[in-house]
Parts: sequence; structure tokens; C-alpha cells
Amino acid sequence: MVTHPFKILSVEETRIARDVVLSLYPDHVVDFREIYLQEPEKELMKQYLDLEHAAQPGQSPSSKRPPRLAKCQYDIIGSDKIPSYHESVIDVELKKRVRHEIVGKEHQASLTLWEFQHLVEACKQSKEFQDAIADFKLPDGFELVVEPWPYGGLDFGAESRRFFQGLCFAQDTRNKNADSNFYAYPLPVIPVMDAHLKKIVRIDRLATGGKGDSFTGQTHSPRVLDHCQSAEYVPELVSGGTRKDVKPINITQPEGPSFKVIDESFVEWQKWSFRVSFNPREGAVLHDVRYDGRSILYRMSISEMTVPYADARPPFHRKQAFDFGDGGAGNCANNLSLGCDCLGVIKYFDAVIVSSDGEPKVHPNVICLHEQDNGIGWKRELVVQFIITLANYEYVFAYKLDTAGGITLEVRATGIVSVVNIDPGKTSDYGNVVSGGVLAQNHQHIFAARIDPAIDGHKNSVTYEESHPVPQNPTTNPQGNFYEIRKTLVSESAGLDANPIDHRVFKIVNPSKKNPHSGNPVGYKFSPLPTQKLLAAPGSIQSQRALFTNHHVWVTKYRDDELYAAGRYTLQSQLEVGGVHDMAARKENVADEDLVVWNVFGLTHNPRVEDWPVMPVEIYQVHFKPSDFFERNPAIDFPSTKNTASVLVEKEGGECCNKL
Amino acid sequence: MVTHPFKILSVEETRIARDVVLSLYPDHVVDFREIYLQEPEKELMKQYLDLEHAAQPGQSPSSKRPPRLAKCQYDIIGSDKIPSYHESVIDVELKKRVRHEIVGKEHQASLTLWEFQHLVEACKQSKEFQDAIADFKLPDGFELVVEPWPYGGLDFGAESRRFFQGLCFAQDTRNKNADSNFYAYPLPVIPVMDAHLKKIVRIDRLATGGKGDSFTGQTHSPRVLDHCQSAEYVPELVSGGTRKDVKPINITQPEGPSFKVIDESFVEWQKWSFRVSFNPREGAVLHDVRYDGRSILYRMSISEMTVPYADARPPFHRKQAFDFGDGGAGNCANNLSLGCDCLGVIKYFDAVIVSSDGEPKVHPNVICLHEQDNGIGWKRELVVQFIITLANYEYVFAYKLDTAGGITLEVRATGIVSVVNIDPGKTSDYGNVVSGGVLAQNHQHIFAARIDPAIDGHKNSVTYEESHPVPQNPTTNPQGNFYEIRKTLVSESAGLDANPIDHRVFKIVNPSKKNPHSGNPVGYKFSPLPTQKLLAAPGSIQSQRALFTNHHVWVTKYRDDELYAAGRYTLQSQLEVGGVHDMAARKENVADEDLVVWNVFGLTHNPRVEDWPVMPVEIYQVHFKPSDFFERNPAIDFPSTKNTASVLVEKEGGECCNKL
Repeated sequence: MVTHPFKILSVEETRIARDVVLSLYPDHVVDFREIYLQEPEKELMKQYLDLEHAAQPGQSPSSKRPPRLAKCQYDIIGSDKIPSYHESVIDVELKKRVRHEIVGKEHQASLTLWEFQHLVEACKQSKEFQDAIADFKLPDGFELVVEPWPYGGLDFGAESRRFFQGLCFAQDTRNKNADSNFYAYPLPVIPVMDAHLKKIVRIDRLATGGKGDSFTGQTHSPRVLDHCQSAEYVPELVSGGTRKDVKPINITQPEGPSFKVIDESFVEWQKWSFRVSFNPREGAVLHDVRYDGRSILYRMSISEMTVPYADARPPFHRKQAFDFGDGGAGNCANNLSLGCDCLGVIKYFDAVIVSSDGEPKVHPNVICLHEQDNGIGWKRELVVQFIITLANYEYVFAYKLDTAGGITLEVRATGIVSVVNIDPGKTSDYGNVVSGGVLAQNHQHIFAARIDPAIDGHKNSVTYEESHPVPQNPTTNPQGNFYEIRKTLVSESAGLDANPIDHRVFKIVNPSKKNPHSGNPVGYKFSPLPTQKLLAAPGSIQSQRALFTNHHVWVTKYRDDELYAAGRYTLQSQLEVGGVHDMAARKENVADEDLVVWNVFGLTHNPRVEDWPVMPVEIYQVHFKPSDFFERNPAIDFPSTKNTASVLVEKEGGECCNKL
Repeated sequence: MVTHPFKILSVEETRIARDVVLSLYPDHVVDFREIYLQEPEKELMKQYLDLEHAAQPGQSPSSKRPPRLAKCQYDIIGSDKIPSYHESVIDVELKKRVRHEIVGKEHQASLTLWEFQHLVEACKQSKEFQDAIADFKLPDGFELVVEPWPYGGLDFGAESRRFFQGLCFAQDTRNKNADSNFYAYPLPVIPVMDAHLKKIVRIDRLATGGKGDSFTGQTHSPRVLDHCQSAEYVPELVSGGTRKDVKPINITQPEGPSFKVIDESFVEWQKWSFRVSFNPREGAVLHDVRYDGRSILYRMSISEMTVPYADARPPFHRKQAFDFGDGGAGNCANNLSLGCDCLGVIKYFDAVIVSSDGEPKVHPNVICLHEQDNGIGWKRELVVQFIITLANYEYVFAYKLDTAGGITLEVRATGIVSVVNIDPGKTSDYGNVVSGGVLAQNHQHIFAARIDPAIDGHKNSVTYEESHPVPQNPTTNPQGNFYEIRKTLVSESAGLDANPIDHRVFKIVNPSKKNPHSGNPVGYKFSPLPTQKLLAAPGSIQSQRALFTNHHVWVTKYRDDELYAAGRYTLQSQLEVGGVHDMAARKENVADEDLVVWNVFGLTHNPRVEDWPVMPVEIYQVHFKPSDFFERNPAIDFPSTKNTASVLVEKEGGECCNKL
């Protein structure tokens, strides 16, 4: 059987790629960062998908198949011990390198988890750092925890080395529980490691003052944790114990699920079909999304997320993560387990990751797939979900397909808000005091989704429509009840904004194909969430490196390999390079073209006490809905069945069914 | 056992009220419209609820109980046959009328379903109307269907009579199915009935033209349905049949639900408690909502909804329903049935309605209550739901309480878009052609929810907070990453707007009680949905009668009996009288006061082809979340249990559990 071009690299393919790279550097140390599928050029895939769908969707035709390519990211350690960062593409069938690039020193490769481990080790080795911790006089039974973080934007004028920083906390080991919440005990110090030297090169002291205190003044007592309070979240430690009156809700599918998975990548469900893949940076990706055989999307992914913190006191401006670009969302994907994350009949998908020697390993259950009931108004949806844990935060990303032809992108944010120590009795302009000694800093989460549409083909256009009042007048609006719809074509690549007050709706259409009833071009529509943009001052580092946050919607012309809203290299960046801002700035024609739509949305998160110690989920959904794509509601043939498993609280029974 | 003051009137109490009214009018015909609970004055209820919660919540103390009162709405038909409309309050224990008002002729009472029936009868009796229908030369086997509607806003200068209008369609009786979709065959005529005469007094002819055609020109052929197409939605009639591959999803609760219902009105679930009631106008209402005994809301309800249509051609400006004020959402509540609307273990609540002779009848299963899983990030929610069907539309209203202390108000809109006939091949500025001969008119749905807070007591304040950028400067924002939170107190009753771009968040707080961690007043927050306001021109009838749509949020001082956003009398209104616009205009102090918050949101609905023949659900949610109300996430003690009923697609198994 021929491997489908969108299928992730197998362990074997990954090993071949690794071996090809190693064979090219017999005299060097090669430190691998990632090996994963280099997706084929779209021009080749178009032909291939046409063949596939003309024959048997889900099977992989053997003719015209694009080469199987592996993207390899690795450091070459020269004799001077200074690594250079390389990106190569290996043809795993030809066993040959087909592309090679040595990335310039102005960029930093994405981090790996073993670099984080180096920071923890370096902290242990640093006498200066250990002395700093000793000064804090931790309470008996408390032990230091260093949480590695990317360094954030490099200050303008600072020497460009590869750095990592550590947020420091203390954990109460008397609980004898590895999940005891150390965030409740923040220490006002940040060690900084030079990644090449693997040495702590600086220790930043953090201010712990409140309103009116200086940015840098050291106002805390030596016993800096004495006013902090336990804030456990694992059930066995929660103060007061856990509730005893929660009864189980079970979801069963006695006849099995309505979906089918072929070849561990092709999914069919209720006239939908798509491929699902997974990569270290974006996590789960949908490809070739179709309904009843008609193409809707070529590709859909979460492209980037930035989390800037608003505490004005240095060095907190460097608390700004790019959780996809810096370390890879896929790398942080949880291994899901049955009965914990989704209910019902679950299909899990695995990924393949590599360690620094390039050895591939199966990363099990990184994606889950299941069906769920979503209540009245076409009840079913299929959920493709992955969950990532990034230090304190936890994000749940889901693509939901529904029986009415809709695609919902859902992001859930939960986890533990990032906190710093604050002196007893003080409050702050930079966040909220959520517990004794714990200041939860104000911050934002800004996401970018990448939607590569293929509405009945690859030549698409984007228009936006608004509804506007019309003054009452005898000619067009005699009774004053009329309003007009204004349509605007996005002819050139650009950034655009949400405008809910005028009910601005974006439509991605195929201008060459008209709906037979309405005469409108077939399309899909969405209303961007009108969430707040990045608040950092224009020109600041936080702002410069996240130019993708300048607009809610970007429309750019498709180019292979342009997948990342904030650019390929975000770690320690001072400016977004090659991101969606640059793509749009090319001012290319995007009317009746192969285009890409980017949707940016987010959350200004000024924490409340209830976000402590674990914040209740915040949910964001963007809905892509057919708009004159079909000739009727595609769910109209969904059967109206009565569920026989539901029961009354007190007595059994029940009569006829609600129609809708 | 003493009846709790928030409990709906029983059949017996209703009958007593009816009899008291009848006894007062021995020589007149009394036509009842409604009899339902007159809720007690808040001053009395405050004391009573304090007593209840000091003793045993859910039980009704016998001392200090406010009187049981019935609100009776009825017409008195005098000897001149001209009815006058009365509203009385009857003390059902004293069997005595305690309040009485004859409503002025400038207002119209809400309609009753039997008045709708009168219209259908009047159409049958009207030769002129029957001749008009005969002119259309209906296809063989088609029969006329008249769908009664409220008349909409009375044109300025028109004689103030009580009118009803009928939208006309034809139904294909050859299907022998009462649910065959007659909306697919719209007839361009509207009969108008004088309700007192019960006679058709006018027949409006509808234009069927498209772009460029005149407002009134009769351009259709006599065989006006010949280009219309069948568009069935009931499964047994759907063209192409229904899907055969949908497998059941069952939700079972083997240990029963986690909620308890006492006295058919008091609900306890996961530290929440509240009373639920039901009335003919608002449907389900929540009272005395508490968490862990702490008061959060005194009352929560859906207050009003208006649906104005934007077709400029007369008489379509009179297509504007007020679905709560005109006819009563409660009156249109569906009788829910097991296995159709909600899954799991369901508790239903009944209502009591009266017929025109005042005889009460149980209206079964108008509210359903059930628990559901909502995925990661405190998984459980309790849903109080009711569904109303209003001619073509169907709305699902739900109050959802979650384990993290949140209250979500959810509205789902589905059903059939309102359509009119359009000539073959034409398109329109007034809507979208969704099928042959069928123009779905552009319209809006604008809802008002009424939130009567009692955050740890009745003296509350409303503030709104925004997050604003701060220019980079050495003193307050050296690195440019800082943003400031600006707080504004709403000191005087007013209308205010959503402002998502500045992340405007409204907080309802108790200024007398501070959170011990943050020092902020305890409160609940919400972000109003920034949906489009009413588009009708200012000064137009559509606009004047819906002044509540001028703002997303209103804050008014509490007064007993001020429950309705668009005022008590909406039927045929030309101006909103006594609605939230008037309440706000009193410019009363609302700081540290007993105040009411009104939230207005809606949907500009420019139909797409996929909305035909039944639109996929549109979902709107407003989230009320604790904001420094609690001392930690109140769900933190929710146990982390592994669901044992979930299975893998292919094999059984599964290991450890995801924490959150």
C-alpha cells in the first residue's frame, strides 16, 4: 500500500531521514531538534487529490504521488563547540537530501525540552544562584522548583546569545505529592542561562512591591514565603477535601461510532471526509476537508499564540511566550487517556517524536476523535482535539465538524495563572492579588488560526459584508425598516478587522461557481471574534515581534511553507520576520486566487481570585459556516430519532418527539 | 405545608382567582387572557428569604410569608359588545381583589391563541379573501394555510383598532402529512382582521418583484406557485430520504442525577440552589440563586425579544414581532418529551394555563432540568431549559449553572426563516432567494435578558472596566508592555454599550463587602455580546417601539413589577412605553442600590440558502462569572474521576487520568 502524502512520517521513515543526515556529517556531533513530515508542494497535491477522489477517497493512488519528504532540524556542533543550526529536507525514498539551509545567527531555533533540562541542571551547578535561594530562608520542608521559560524578546541592544530563564517557586514536600502546587510560593528571582555555555550568566532580582513602590526596589523580607498560603488543586490535597455528591454521567455508543478511520489518517463521518496529521509545531492539522466529496478546505491549523505579560517592572516584559513558535505546541501535547478527556467511543491518534540523537519514538494518544451530541438544531458534531500543557497553562484545541456543514475552531484555556511574589498587604497595578503573597499578573493570550480554503477548488476570493441602516426616505425606505447589505471584495493581500457593530461577516467564496437558487458564489462565512488586540505599545519589543496581532483577519496569497503567523523564528525575536504581516505587505492579488485566511483572536486576562489556583476554562469558538455553498441545509436529512436511554428523574415514560 | 411565595399558582389557586373575578362581574361576559402568580413585593421577600435560609432552605417558613397573589388579565364585554381590558390582583387566601386597573385604550392586551383562531375562522368567512385566494389558481392538491401574526406596529395616523394579520401559504396535501412544509409555497396576500368585529377588514396585496421592481407592482402570474419547489423537513418526507448511518449516543446516569428537586420548585445541585418558576410571558424564571448559601441573583429572566423584518415594501414593515410581549413566550412553550430534547436523567416541570373561561389546565413538561458534561475545565453544568415555537421560529432558552460558579444564559434560534413569494429568476435587496419562488427576508432577532442581582445582599453597584494601552515612557511603562485597567462606576441609571476592542467588562459588585485576598468588592462580571443593534431608522415605528435595543446594557433602579424591557404593552405599539428606556431616563442613583441589569443582544439574520428549509441553530451565550466573589476557584474541590463507560474504538483499555 502506498503511503498517503499527508500521513505523518512513520518511525521507519523518520529513522531513514535521521540516518541520511548523520551520514552527511561523519565528523561532527549532530543534535537533532525535530524530524517531521515536510508537506508536499500544493501544485503536486492538487493533482494527487483529484486522482484520489476520482478513484477511492481514503486510498492512496500510486501514480503521481509526491515524494515523501522529511524536514530535519538539527544543530551541527563544530570543533569550536559553537553550534550552527540547519534545516534540511530529506527524500526518504531516495534517501537523499534535497534541500539544505544553514539558518543565520540572527534567528534562534525553536527550543527543545532537553534545553529546558539544561537550565534546571545549570541552576543546580550555579553557586551564585544557590546562594540567592538560600537567602530566602525557605520554610522547613520546602524545596526549590525552577520552571524553565523561553527568554522572551531580546532587549534592543542586548548581545544576541541563546538564553533561557527560570521562574522560581518552592514546593511543600511535606505533602509527598509531586503535584503539590508550588506556584503558591513564588520566589522573586530569575536565573538566566546562556544555552551554549550551559551556565547561569545572570540572576535577575524581582521587585515584590505594590502600588507606589519602585520598579526595582527590594522590599521583601528574607522570609519571602511566610505570607504565602497553600493552594492545592490535586483532589487528594485540596483543602476541605473533594465533593462526595457528584454522580457519574456516562456516554455510551452501543452500536459504535458513526465515523470510520482508514489508514490511521483518513476520517469519514456523516458525509465529511478529511485527513488528520500532527506535527511538533502546530499539533493536529486537518487536510483536504470535504463534504459529500466537495472540497472546502485544503488545510486548517492553529498557527501561533503569544502570551505577553503586562507587568511594567523589568524583566517581566520578557514574559512573552510564542507557544507554537518557541517550543512547538505539538511537542507539548498531552498523551490523552480514556475516560479523562472525552466521553464515549474514542479514537486516538499517535505522533512520532525524536530525541536529540534523532531516534524516533511513538508519542501515543496525542489527538482524540469522538462524536458528541450538541443539543437541538442539528445535534451531532465530530471533535478532533488535542491538549497542550505549557508550564502553568493548559490549552485544549478542537476542530468540530457538524452535520449542518459547519466547522468550529475551539480553543479552551485553563491551567494556573502565572504569578509572582507580592509583599503582604499590598495591591498592584500589574495584576490581582489572588492569595497571600501571590500576584497574578495581567496578560493576554492571542491566537492565530490558519485557514487554507479550497471552496470547490483552489481559486477563491474573500469578501466582507456589512449591514447598514438607511435613513428613512420615500424612495428606498419609506417606513424606515429597510437596511442594506454592503459587500466589499478583498482584492489585495491585507489585514482587516472585526466589526460586529456593523455585523461584518467575512465570506470565502469561489467566484466561478454560483448557487443555483440565490445566484451568489458558493462559499463559507465567518464572523471574526472582536477581541482586543495586543495592548503593548507600538514599537515595543512585545509588539514588534507579534505584528500578526495587529488585525483580526489577514488575507494572503498562498505560498508553500508559509505556515506561521509570527514567522518561522519566534524565539528571542525582536521583530516578526516572515510572518503574516510581511506576507500581507506583498500586496499581491488575492481575488480569484489561491489564498490563505488567518484569523486572530484572544483574551485579555486580568485575573480574578477565582482563577486561583486553577482557572476555570475560557472558551473561544470561531464558526465557519456554509453560505450558499449547499442547495439546502445539508443536515435536513438527519433522522429524527428518539433517544431511548434517557429517563425521567422519578418515573419511566415519555411520548412523542420534538421535531427539530 | 406552606406554599412558597415563588411557587407558581396551583390549579386550585388559579380556580379561586378565576372565581373571585367572575363573582365581581355577575352581569358581564368575562373573557380571561391569563391568570398567573403575581410575585410578592421584594421588600417582603427579602425578609422571608432571610428566614428561609436561616432555617432550612427549600422549606417554606410559615411566618412572614407574603400573601399568595394571582394576576388576572381579562376582557369585560359590556352590553355594547366592546370589550374593556382589565388587570386585577386577587389574594387567593383572602379570596379578595386587592388591586384593579382598567387599561387605557391606547394599549392593547397581549394576544391569546384563541384570537389567532378567530383570524383563521374570519378568513374562512370572508368571501373577498376566498376570492383572492381563488385567483392564485393553486396547483391540484394544494390547500390554503393562514398563519396568524400580530399586526406589528400600527402605522402612524392609522385608526387604533385591534388587528391581526395572516401570512398565507399553500400546503401540498398529497403528502397526507400535517407537517408538510407549507412555507415553501408563499402566497402574496395578507388578510387583516379587526379583532373586535372578528372580520377581515382589508386584504393587502404583496409585491413579488425583485431588484428594480416597484414596491407595490403586481408582477406575478396567476399561477403564483408554479415555480416553487417542495422543501420538506420532516424525516419521512425529506427528498432523498434520511441518513441511515447515524448511530445512537446514549447518556446514562446509573446512580441518578446529582441534583435534588424539592417541592417542584426548589433545586439544589453542587452547592447551587435556586427556585424555578414559569409564567405565560417570560417562560422559565430563576429566583433566589445562591451558591453555598450566598446570594447571587434575586431573579433572572428573558424579558423580551423583537424580530423586525427589513423588506422595504409595505406592509412588510409591520412584520415585527415582540415574542414575549405580544403573545407570551411561556404560552408558546413546547411540551417537552423524553429522549427528544435533552439526554440523560431529566426532570420536567409543569405550568398551569387558563382558557378563555378561566379554567386552569396543567401545561405539562414546559421546563426541563438536567445535568451535562461540558468537557475540560470544570466539567459539569446544570441546565434549566425551555423551548418556544412561534410560527416559523423555534427558540431554545437555557440557564446553565456550572461548578465554577458561572451562570450562562444561552439562546438558540432555529426553525424556518420567514419567506415571501418572488418571481422566477429575480433576486432582491431585501433578502436571499433560498429556493424557487422563495425569498427569505433579511431580519434581526434582538433579545433582552433581565438580571436582578443580589450579590451578597441587595445593595449592589455596577462598574465597567476597560484595558487600555499606555504609551511607552520611562516612568510608568519603560518597556512598553504595560497596559492599564480603567474602572468606571455607573452611578446613575443609564444605557451603556459593549466595547470588546477595549475589553470592556461589566461588574456587578457589592461595594460593602471586600474579597479578603484582592481587596476588591465581591462581584460577578460579564462581557456583553457586541452584537449589532436595531437597524431600523431612528424615528421609524420599528425603532420607536423597541427603544430597548438602543444599548447593550441598561442599569436601572429596582422597582416592583418592572419586568419588561419593551414595556408592558407591545402589541401594536408605536412607542416603547414603560420599558427600560423610560426606566433609565429617570436618572436614579444606582450606586450601592437595589438595581437591575438588562442585557440586550441579537442576531442580524441575512439568510443563506442553508437556512432553508430549517435553519441550523444559531447559539448566543452570555456568561456571568464570579469576579473576586469567592476566595478561590469554587470548583477546585470537584473530584477528578475517571469515566469508566468510555471505550476505545477498537480495543478496551486506558491508563492514568488527565488532571484537569
